[in-house]
Amino acid sequence: MAKLVECIPNFSEGRRTTVIEAIAGAIKEVPGVILLDYSADASHNRSVFTLVGTPEQVKKAVLQAAQQAVNLIDMTQHRGEHPRMGAVDVIPFVPIQNVTMDECVILSREAGAAIARELGMPVFLYEESATAASRKNLAEVRRGEFEGMAEKMQKTEWRPDFGDKLHPTAGAVAVGARMPLIAYNINLNTSDLNIAKAIAKIIRESSGGLKFVKALGVMLEDRNLAQVSINMTNYEQTPLYRVLELVKAEAKRYGVGVVGTEIIGLTPAKALVDSAKYYLQLEGFDGDKQVLENHLLRSNNG
Amino acid sequence: MAKLVECIPNFSEGRRTTVIEAIAGAIKEVPGVILLDYSADASHNRSVFTLVGTPEQVKKAVLQAAQQAVNLIDMTQHRGEHPRMGAVDVIPFVPIQNVTMDECVILSREAGAAIARELGMPVFLYEESATAASRKNLAEVRRGEFEGMAEKMQKTEWRPDFGDKLHPTAGAVAVGARMPLIAYNINLNTSDLNIAKAIAKIIRESSGGLKFVKALGVMLEDRNLAQVSINMTNYEQTPLYRVLELVKAEAKRYGVGVVGTEIIGLTPAKALVDSAKYYLQLEGFDGDKQVLENHLLRSNNG
Repeated sequence: MAKLVECIPNFSEGRRTTVIEAIAGAIKEVPGVILLDYSADASHNRSVFTLVGTPEQVKKAVLQAAQQAVNLIDMTQHRGEHPRMGAVDVIPFVPIQNVTMDECVILSREAGAAIARELGMPVFLYEESATAASRKNLAEVRRGEFEGMAEKMQKTEWRPDFGDKLHPTAGAVAVGARMPLIAYNINLNTSDLNIAKAIAKIIRESSGGLKFVKALGVMLEDRNLAQVSINMTNYEQTPLYRVLELVKAEAKRYGVGVVGTEIIGLTPAKALVDSAKYYLQLEGFDGDKQVLENHLLRSNNG
Repeated sequence: MAKLVECIPNFSEGRRTTVIEAIAGAIKEVPGVILLDYSADASHNRSVFTLVGTPEQVKKAVLQAAQQAVNLIDMTQHRGEHPRMGAVDVIPFVPIQNVTMDECVILSREAGAAIARELGMPVFLYEESATAASRKNLAEVRRGEFEGMAEKMQKTEWRPDFGDKLHPTAGAVAVGARMPLIAYNINLNTSDLNIAKAIAKIIRESSGGLKFVKALGVMLEDRNLAQVSINMTNYEQTPLYRVLELVKAEAKRYGVGVVGTEIIGLTPAKALVDSAKYYLQLEGFDGDKQVLENHLLRSNNG
């Protein structure tokens, strides 16, 4: 069974199609790499690419893509709503199949070292790859953004892990390993945003709720519904069903129910199978052996 | 994306390892075919093989396996608890990926014609491939078993679809196309078998319940629990969650609950994903696009 890693690099370009296509082209050029998806957001002026392959294939593809970004994106001219510090802004490596988190951490270090050496961008290792607790969180690493990064890097505690000075036009990049992230939104049958905010506060880790859960209350203006918008950073430790059931329980306090939910973008099948196992009350179910597709994936990958 | 078909041939040998291994060997010999699983039951004196491949690969493998069965199994000497009529007893073809049910019906006809022509066994087409409503149900086709089949085949309505007289030692075989079958058992927190029987009667199609559901009440002696034992013949039309929820609703009448459930053997991931979608209340979820593994399967199969 082949080792498979997913990589979801974010680039600070969401408007110029030629740049976005040049980045996509650099990824597609590497044999064996699958570019699952890419999308650009003009108001964020940012694009997100999702690729899968063996560790070596993915490393090569992301380095080539970063090279394009360094050549084509000038951060001194970049404006957009999303916080950012580099032309290639963040590069997470995610274990998918037959790969441990430790292997992804090593891969992120190799990729980070190569980016600093070959492209001249300083690299901060973040999430599972972080070399200090204060560097785990991407928002902390990126605070100050491109414009404040040269000064921030002067401080001993924010010296980059690789490289030493800010790239004048491409800035700096965060590289790391993490679990697959699932974006899961829960819509409430209320237009009271405060209820969604109160529930978000109860369920998220940062205010004492469930580990591996980030949550915000937001308003879906077009449907006049309040939504608990959730990022799940480890669906194996904190599964989807547990988050949904906790939201339902807390919503009851307000006489509010759940009208529907949505998963944004990709999810590993296992995240859904785990929830099916819970609700179907399955005993002794072994997905590796009993889910037909898992046999096909193993056979196809040799 | 390659066309993929599953085939689950049953053979009337569950005791002699050499025969079972000869059948397995004939399947494994065909390049590209994946033998997912095989198991033998001594008291049934029967073995079940599960293979996957392209339609042509699977047809070739099952013909070679049937040849071994004709050579090595003598039905005049066969004793076992399970009803049977042939050395290779039943051959279902199941659409898995990029294949329609109609294509599987055609495949079953081609395989059936080849078995009659090359191996001299008469063939009854059953399930989706049946040429008469009375032949859809395997139990009806097999009634009379090996010992009664020569006489049964004299009747106009039981003339075989291919071949004309019973093979003296190998008997007859049923060949057809069907949806994946899921064996789903629901354990009740009662030792009263009558409750499981009453619920089984309510949910099964044959007594007016849910379409595509077969169900029996049985006793799990070792756990002292009554079980509703279910075969689901079309999980897309009648999904797992609907069966479970109906069983729960009917069990309430007796103050009985569900302690757990089990899936026996293989299931397509979609059967579980469909139930996850229901319970997680997912809106607008597209498994083809949003389940990561589906992209990998498509890419791997070229």
